[in-house]
Amino acid sequence: MTKATKVFRPEDVPESNATGYPEPYRAMNMMRHARRIGEFGGLTNFGVNLVRIEPGGQSSARHAHLKQDEVVLILDGDITLETNEGEQIVTPGTYITFPAGTGDAHRFVNKTEKDVVFLVVGDKTREDVVTYPDIDMHGVGGADGIFRYYRKDGTLY
Amino acid sequence: MTKATKVFRPEDVPESNATGYPEPYRAMNMMRHARRIGEFGGLTNFGVNLVRIEPGGQSSARHAHLKQDEVVLILDGDITLETNEGEQIVTPGTYITFPAGTGDAHRFVNKTEKDVVFLVVGDKTREDVVTYPDIDMHGVGGADGIFRYYRKDGTLY
Repeated sequence: MTKATKVFRPEDVPESNATGYPEPYRAMNMMRHARRIGEFGGLTNFGVNLVRIEPGGQSSARHAHLKQDEVVLILDGDITLETNEGEQIVTPGTYITFPAGTGDAHRFVNKTEKDVVFLVVGDKTREDVVTYPDIDMHGVGGADGIFRYYRKDGTLY
Repeated sequence: MTKATKVFRPEDVPESNATGYPEPYRAMNMMRHARRIGEFGGLTNFGVNLVRIEPGGQSSARHAHLKQDEVVLILDGDITLETNEGEQIVTPGTYITFPAGTGDAHRFVNKTEKDVVFLVVGDKTREDVVTYPDIDMHGVGGADGIFRYYRKDGTLY
């Protein structure tokens, strides 16, 4: 009860470059380092990650969520945002919102020579579907709460 | 479709000190100015607000949510966090998490002479109950999605 509220600094939270992506897409996702702020703080209703992208790294493969909203706040460094519309550089203090269900796929790519840091928040709505227009991957959140990766021919990775 | 992703700066978003609080609790809540980042960006699954608190102002009355999680990131200025445990000053870069259902009630009070700015994210789980230990107020989210304020004797404000 009394320990409910948690006050902490980013450096208190472990950083990890783990990825659930299957081969051959794992390596390109591992220059992304995330601190699971929400989980560390005991939150379960939505995810909050503080993300650091190395030079040359990406936030994820370019993707769009069917059911889950996402928002990013750039905190440090300039990074390239790619969407269906093309690309643009976004800078600290900029907000980028990705409403669910639009089909507009996005990723961030660090084309600079220094790390970029941003905050990302997304909800955990079940039975989400994630489409990846650029690679042979398709993600489906099961009714069991487990997220699985398929090839576009429907076979499970 | 192609306009789905939204890229913007805080100053693009209108700022408002509107409050749903009933009298006599309205005035103390109106030194809080919020920019509705999530709504502006087309998000519906959770709320994202950039909040500015004037000197002497508060974020809200001290409260605890039954069902909704909340997280705050301090962006500018030092502010006093009050919880069941007492008070402490939190500074830029600090994260504060308020998991649902713990009963640990919180508010932020600006005891400095300059504005404080923070980001707050909370989900929109329905039928939430909000308890206010310090004032004669009790908030209930209806199954109809409408949030109502009651006195502690159960009468509607």
